[in-house]
Amino acid sequence: MSDQINEFFQPVSAMDLPRFAGVPTFMRLPNLTPDHPRYGEVQMGLIGVPWDGGTTNRPGARHGPRQLRDYSTMIRAMNPATGVNPFASVNCADLGDVPPNPVDILDSLDRVTRFYRDLKSQGITPMTAGGDHLITLPILRAMASEAPVGLIQFDSHTDLFDSYFGGNKFTHGTPFRRAIEEGFVDPQRFVQVGIRGTAYNTEDIDWGIEQGVRIIRIEELFDRGIPHVMAEVREIVGDQPTYCTYDIDFVDPTFAPGTGTPEIGGPNSFQAQQVIRELAGVNLIGADLVEVAPPFDAAGNTAWLGISLMFELMCVLSQAMK
Amino acid sequence: MSDQINEFFQPVSAMDLPRFAGVPTFMRLPNLTPDHPRYGEVQMGLIGVPWDGGTTNRPGARHGPRQLRDYSTMIRAMNPATGVNPFASVNCADLGDVPPNPVDILDSLDRVTRFYRDLKSQGITPMTAGGDHLITLPILRAMASEAPVGLIQFDSHTDLFDSYFGGNKFTHGTPFRRAIEEGFVDPQRFVQVGIRGTAYNTEDIDWGIEQGVRIIRIEELFDRGIPHVMAEVREIVGDQPTYCTYDIDFVDPTFAPGTGTPEIGGPNSFQAQQVIRELAGVNLIGADLVEVAPPFDAAGNTAWLGISLMFELMCVLSQAMK
Amino acid sequence: MSDQINEFFQPVSAMDLPRFAGVPTFMRLPNLTPDHPRYGEVQMGLIGVPWDGGTTNRPGARHGPRQLRDYSTMIRAMNPATGVNPFASVNCADLGDVPPNPVDILDSLDRVTRFYRDLKSQGITPMTAGGDHLITLPILRAMASEAPVGLIQFDSHTDLFDSYFGGNKFTHGTPFRRAIEEGFVDPQRFVQVGIRGTAYNTEDIDWGIEQGVRIIRIEELFDRGIPHVMAEVREIVGDQPTYCTYDIDFVDPTFAPGTGTPEIGGPNSFQAQQVIRELAGVNLIGADLVEVAPPFDAAGNTAWLGISLMFELMCVLSQAMK
Amino acid sequence: MSDQINEFFQPVSAMDLPRFAGVPTFMRLPNLTPDHPRYGEVQMGLIGVPWDGGTTNRPGARHGPRQLRDYSTMIRAMNPATGVNPFASVNCADLGDVPPNPVDILDSLDRVTRFYRDLKSQGITPMTAGGDHLITLPILRAMASEAPVGLIQFDSHTDLFDSYFGGNKFTHGTPFRRAIEEGFVDPQRFVQVGIRGTAYNTEDIDWGIEQGVRIIRIEELFDRGIPHVMAEVREIVGDQPTYCTYDIDFVDPTFAPGTGTPEIGGPNSFQAQQVIRELAGVNLIGADLVEVAPPFDAAGNTAWLGISLMFELMCVLSQAMK
Amino acid sequence: MSDQINEFFQPVSAMDLPRFAGVPTFMRLPNLTPDHPRYGEVQMGLIGVPWDGGTTNRPGARHGPRQLRDYSTMIRAMNPATGVNPFASVNCADLGDVPPNPVDILDSLDRVTRFYRDLKSQGITPMTAGGDHLITLPILRAMASEAPVGLIQFDSHTDLFDSYFGGNKFTHGTPFRRAIEEGFVDPQRFVQVGIRGTAYNTEDIDWGIEQGVRIIRIEELFDRGIPHVMAEVREIVGDQPTYCTYDIDFVDPTFAPGTGTPEIGGPNSFQAQQVIRELAGVNLIGADLVEVAPPFDAAGNTAWLGISLMFELMCVLSQAMK
Amino acid sequence: MSDQINEFFQPVSAMDLPRFAGVPTFMRLPNLTPDHPRYGEVQMGLIGVPWDGGTTNRPGARHGPRQLRDYSTMIRAMNPATGVNPFASVNCADLGDVPPNPVDILDSLDRVTRFYRDLKSQGITPMTAGGDHLITLPILRAMASEAPVGLIQFDSHTDLFDSYFGGNKFTHGTPFRRAIEEGFVDPQRFVQVGIRGTAYNTEDIDWGIEQGVRIIRIEELFDRGIPHVMAEVREIVGDQPTYCTYDIDFVDPTFAPGTGTPEIGGPNSFQAQQVIRELAGVNLIGADLVEVAPPFDAAGNTAWLGISLMFELMCVLSQAMK
Repeated sequence: MSDQINEFFQPVSAMDLPRFAGVPTFMRLPNLTPDHPRYGEVQMGLIGVPWDGGTTNRPGARHGPRQLRDYSTMIRAMNPATGVNPFASVNCADLGDVPPNPVDILDSLDRVTRFYRDLKSQGITPMTAGGDHLITLPILRAMASEAPVGLIQFDSHTDLFDSYFGGNKFTHGTPFRRAIEEGFVDPQRFVQVGIRGTAYNTEDIDWGIEQGVRIIRIEELFDRGIPHVMAEVREIVGDQPTYCTYDIDFVDPTFAPGTGTPEIGGPNSFQAQQVIRELAGVNLIGADLVEVAPPFDAAGNTAWLGISLMFELMCVLSQAMK
Repeated sequence: MSDQINEFFQPVSAMDLPRFAGVPTFMRLPNLTPDHPRYGEVQMGLIGVPWDGGTTNRPGARHGPRQLRDYSTMIRAMNPATGVNPFASVNCADLGDVPPNPVDILDSLDRVTRFYRDLKSQGITPMTAGGDHLITLPILRAMASEAPVGLIQFDSHTDLFDSYFGGNKFTHGTPFRRAIEEGFVDPQRFVQVGIRGTAYNTEDIDWGIEQGVRIIRIEELFDRGIPHVMAEVREIVGDQPTYCTYDIDFVDPTFAPGTGTPEIGGPNSFQAQQVIRELAGVNLIGADLVEVAPPFDAAGNTAWLGISLMFELMCVLSQAMK
Repeated sequence: MSDQINEFFQPVSAMDLPRFAGVPTFMRLPNLTPDHPRYGEVQMGLIGVPWDGGTTNRPGARHGPRQLRDYSTMIRAMNPATGVNPFASVNCADLGDVPPNPVDILDSLDRVTRFYRDLKSQGITPMTAGGDHLITLPILRAMASEAPVGLIQFDSHTDLFDSYFGGNKFTHGTPFRRAIEEGFVDPQRFVQVGIRGTAYNTEDIDWGIEQGVRIIRIEELFDRGIPHVMAEVREIVGDQPTYCTYDIDFVDPTFAPGTGTPEIGGPNSFQAQQVIRELAGVNLIGADLVEVAPPFDAAGNTAWLGISLMFELMCVLSQAMK
Repeated sequence: MSDQINEFFQPVSAMDLPRFAGVPTFMRLPNLTPDHPRYGEVQMGLIGVPWDGGTTNRPGARHGPRQLRDYSTMIRAMNPATGVNPFASVNCADLGDVPPNPVDILDSLDRVTRFYRDLKSQGITPMTAGGDHLITLPILRAMASEAPVGLIQFDSHTDLFDSYFGGNKFTHGTPFRRAIEEGFVDPQRFVQVGIRGTAYNTEDIDWGIEQGVRIIRIEELFDRGIPHVMAEVREIVGDQPTYCTYDIDFVDPTFAPGTGTPEIGGPNSFQAQQVIRELAGVNLIGADLVEVAPPFDAAGNTAWLGISLMFELMCVLSQAMK
Repeated sequence: MSDQINEFFQPVSAMDLPRFAGVPTFMRLPNLTPDHPRYGEVQMGLIGVPWDGGTTNRPGARHGPRQLRDYSTMIRAMNPATGVNPFASVNCADLGDVPPNPVDILDSLDRVTRFYRDLKSQGITPMTAGGDHLITLPILRAMASEAPVGLIQFDSHTDLFDSYFGGNKFTHGTPFRRAIEEGFVDPQRFVQVGIRGTAYNTEDIDWGIEQGVRIIRIEELFDRGIPHVMAEVREIVGDQPTYCTYDIDFVDPTFAPGTGTPEIGGPNSFQAQQVIRELAGVNLIGADLVEVAPPFDAAGNTAWLGISLMFELMCVLSQAMK
Repeated sequence: MSDQINEFFQPVSAMDLPRFAGVPTFMRLPNLTPDHPRYGEVQMGLIGVPWDGGTTNRPGARHGPRQLRDYSTMIRAMNPATGVNPFASVNCADLGDVPPNPVDILDSLDRVTRFYRDLKSQGITPMTAGGDHLITLPILRAMASEAPVGLIQFDSHTDLFDSYFGGNKFTHGTPFRRAIEEGFVDPQRFVQVGIRGTAYNTEDIDWGIEQGVRIIRIEELFDRGIPHVMAEVREIVGDQPTYCTYDIDFVDPTFAPGTGTPEIGGPNSFQAQQVIRELAGVNLIGADLVEVAPPFDAAGNTAWLGISLMFELMCVLSQAMK
């Protein structure tokens, strides 16, 4: 990418404006719409998809992007563990929110797909803040329009169910079944990490394994250790284009209470960072962080964790873009 | 009604089981399903409609019935201001929740209508806990299947809009326009009390006035006083069958923060009770209390207010059933 | 002002983007800096002064503008009680935050004054969100640079003390003493409404009365009634240029707990609106709403009240600009 | 009392130590035990009775005195409405907490009585912070050991029940029945103000009326107005020794959510102050403020209201001591 | 147990009624009283003991069963780590709450013992939700009426003290001293895991060791690892009947803040599950989970952890019942 | 130190006064001022420095000492892991708070230095509760007035920056740069543990390394393990006088959300204790615990963690004083 820092695309410095001040855009970056004269220079787009129409239990993820933006003003520029400064090598911008339809699921899915198709046509790598997990389906429809992609999913649930309540095919429990069926994800290059929680049955797991999805339960993650598991993950997805979807309920609910379907017994915040840092070298074409539901954590601790993880994802994305 | 108290339908006494103990049914009443041998004796049914699919802003009203039941265990039997004990004169029971479909609006509307048609055929007077305000539409479809009813609405919004987001006809901003259009509410016997809050435009007000709806803004309520305004309300609805719908956002948001679309400058909790007590004498055929959204008031104060108001509604309903 | 609506300066419609979506600028207005091509068209500027360096008790008002912006996305365009739509008659924009220095009081005061001098030179009417009450002093230094102005202060404290802790002249308890001493406020045209709370002594009151300030305690406000008191207020300030400063602790702390120095026994939210509506006809040159401190009301109810009042202030300001 | 201010008994000034600093004693007064050399000079004692052993519903009042002390550091010295400065005319001190026994009701009652007998023998007027309402019984046993006293009770409940759960005579629902039966309160000089809330039956009311207790329901208070009702209250108790007990649930639960048995439809914070100010002239021998339960209002707003009311009680007590 | 699933005793499916809907019984199971026709088929009973009369510090555990029931509606049927579905092999039901006496400790202890004696006579295995830890004593009095049982206690405190406040023998700090003295627990088959927290002295530890109790401090648990420690635990209790009592304060207070006496430095939620899973093979005759105090964690995270652990206990109990 | 326990300096026993009762001094110790007759016997002083004037982001640490005192009443006397009872070997007392000037940084720094110089001249070892991290600078100015001391800092930030906002030299990001420059800390005997979080740049790190400061990042702490890292720490500071400063943001923000600048990925509460226990043998001359900001954790969990860690620091301090 660019040899020198593009000043226009740098976060507002806390030396000029304290962190609690200013209109909260993602990472204090410029907020651009397609009609902006410098839109064409954007390389990584930060987008919100404030929608929870696919939620069958506790709603609230529609409020996620707003609170993530708020807490993002406390993020600085450099990753001290990996030395990466995503803003130095890639032009990043806040591209606003996809306008979802709160009372129409299919319309909303279409709106998301259209938005990401435009990004793709502009060559912009998307870093998305959800919204519930169903939003990843329309993003994949846009991102994988040419060929199925690899998928790395951090989550406590497989989201591989077929339907709900006697036939509803589109909920936040079904996106990856749809994505495989529709040919946007290559199940041989699909790995799920952190699965746990009580189960209705094994329908989702059985179907996933049948397709070739690699499902790594939390016990396996803790037993083998993050470095070994993540080495396997990297091997599974190989060097072909791969998308990363990170459900905040992957993390233990004490660290991330602000989510609709928490499951105890998950990773802590350091481990939550580690799994992302181990994505270095993966051919990432985009990422999302979903299911932050502020009404269930008014204090904002989940949003602070979420945006900290989103910064880690930006770091590995920016490396993949070099 | 019955001359003597029906012991089976009495709330569990705090002298037998403290108020914090026991499975929380509405008002500590028996929880009956249609297959129960004594279901046929039920006269007033308390029902939850835990659904917020019509919500265009902040969701959470689907969690209302659960928290209302919890706080209802602190309600005792007698209304000290009016002397009414609804449990003494009417057989009341908790009939459970309508099972809504969280991801399908039209299916949910149908499920509600079917549930209330069954109640109607059993002669059970419904006292409902929402849910967002769209739930009143399918209830009215069942309750007014024979003839349009009168309607008394306590609310800060008219909910008389035509559509949303380019055509969606069913949201919590549209139920009473639909109810008039579909012929379930007689606009000449429809009065709204407490309207306030910033406005997009006057489309809803204009349309309502054109139909004959009497819209009483909050300034008028405070200026003229509750007794005078409510006398007019009673005159408007007359002695024909009338339904009462109470949106918790009628009350000032300091008293009821746990709701999706609060508007400041509303009545206090005493005034919130008064307007209901002034319904004595109205030919009520049912009532609901909607839009309690617990995620926005985790402390439960809104639920405590809500269930206290629901008890007031039960008192006037029970009087109307005599 | 303009005969037809300037589309560029309209709030984003909820029909295009739901209220929970999008980067939260004040009232969903465009966020402009002086280098923006349309900056010259701005007539009313909404500005944040996120600073609490003058706070001697509980800090947190520096976080006010952020949360007020967040809740402002729930405000619509028209005032239903007065019929005023400020966006229709005046070009309003979010001009961002003054960059304060969190560790230097005098530097911060200078930064604020410079910012408002620029606005004044542009002919922009300022509507400010604080910040603690000391911020009004540097605003007045800019606004009243030519001649002392009238001042209407809604507050539970006089803020007329001389100094603190052995000599500190600049705290949120002293701004109006300074403003009179420095000649920016005409004490004969200065009225304070809502004063209450326990007192150290009567030094502030005595000094104020001596200067000619009219101090209206809360008991007098309640006894005489808002219309009569506000008529007197209008008479005191007359038709000369007048600034309005509204400390959120004027309102009862149950309605506005998120503030540093609450005093019980204050107005409710309806009365809090009423006093502003009674400013119609005053020759207002600017206004501010200060002392919203989100850490003391994480649920955001104070911010919702505060932004609703700020909208009322915008309405009377826009009328005064005609 | 003393002609000049006793410096030793003055609250620590905020000019010397900011309000958020220092060990939180009641009103920033010296904390004395009987062995202190200046204990003999104390005229009004502030005492905590941190105990909720009589609570049959939601416990937590044992944590009341701690939080009331914390918020008391925001109280200043002078009552601006009445001009009274209790610290100027009376030597006030924090006398610490009665050590209750959390697992033995009768032992706790005895401990309280012994503590107040000692105060009485010292001629110290007690201003108490509860604790649940049962604590007033042992206080009365000490205070009225010579002759029955008059009693003014602000409350939403009568606390005149006979027993609980098949025979328990000592709960927070029974103290005033016991106090009358035991001869410590003169029922002809006993008045209750603010009674409301759903009722099990009218046993308590009937018994009270039979004894001659004057029970003023909330509707009567609002209808007749505070000045008229309080004039009647003063007449009832006359000029003989009278004790005042103030249950925080007298106030509307939106203003005082932190209590175990809230009842909606009560006075606001201004009215909560007014009723106390109307006690001027009553021959008060002591007062208490009870039922502040911090676990139900972690934000502390109830404690802030409670301590503000306690200051008002101190003002009228100090006047009665002159 | 039964070869085929007993449909009557299955949790309500989320496909029929969403998880946020319906009256919240434990695990969405039928709520039965002894007079129900199918009561005789119950094999495992879920019971609440909503009582905190033994609490010497922060009360609130009386509210535990209510909130645990609420969150239990998010538990599904199968344990994904162990493959156990307790509902498939054992008839489970919610048997309601023991009615405690909030103002009489000894009466409450008797009420609990009577309730569990009845269960025992019916052959029902009890899975209890407390309540403070004193409730385990009356349960053991019923369960071990024939012979002392083994006891596995997860806790941060030994609860082996002799008395409190000069002689009180029954508090939540003394139950296991009483249980040993009364002969209901065999100290040689009694093991405590997780002990930590500051100490008054070593009286409890010394006495316990003298009796033969094996006390495993938290440092030992972490040093040796859960598998090794739990192997020792299994060896200590052997194959004789053993009861398991799980105090939620065993878990680190960041994971379980909603409890009366938290101690930092404890296990995380995964470890909290692990220790239960290691109970497979133990001859368990009952279990309880105690000390969840909702007032200290209004957000409900502790209840979600607690009910998740209760499900784990149900899994090992159901295995022991085969 | 003393051979027998000095009864005057023992914490109030919970057997005499329950933990929720009484005026909350640190650890329930006597609260002494220099004029107290037994002040001369004090060996370890617990002091609050309630000040956050150096905070550039989220304020609130001025409220830390108050809440830490409140929670300290739940601490008992003996450290069960190390067997140390600090109260048995050292005379400890609460010496109150330094009176800071909320609106003057330099004045406040001077006030702190003067307070600690007095302590030093009395031979009192200080154990301080902050306050933001800038308070450690004036403490070091007093403590190291004769010779530079060694410093062990637990923190997620280096606080080694030069200046802020164009020249401000005194903020909570600069104290240790100042302390080295002013000659109060020996950089060769200065070690920082736990550093992490996103970075503006490496200015602070580079400068620190240049001076010889040993900076141990969180990854190194986790990789090498606490025992090995802490052995190195002990070696670096050697046996010369050493001060320990503990910023609560060293701990993971899920465990300590109540702080101004949280950074995810930190130690848990057990590890937070462990690092202190590994200080046994270090020649400690004082310690502080800073940056507890109650407004960001109203529930008090951070204060409970903080005071538990302060007790651990007291234990190692008391050992060093023998």
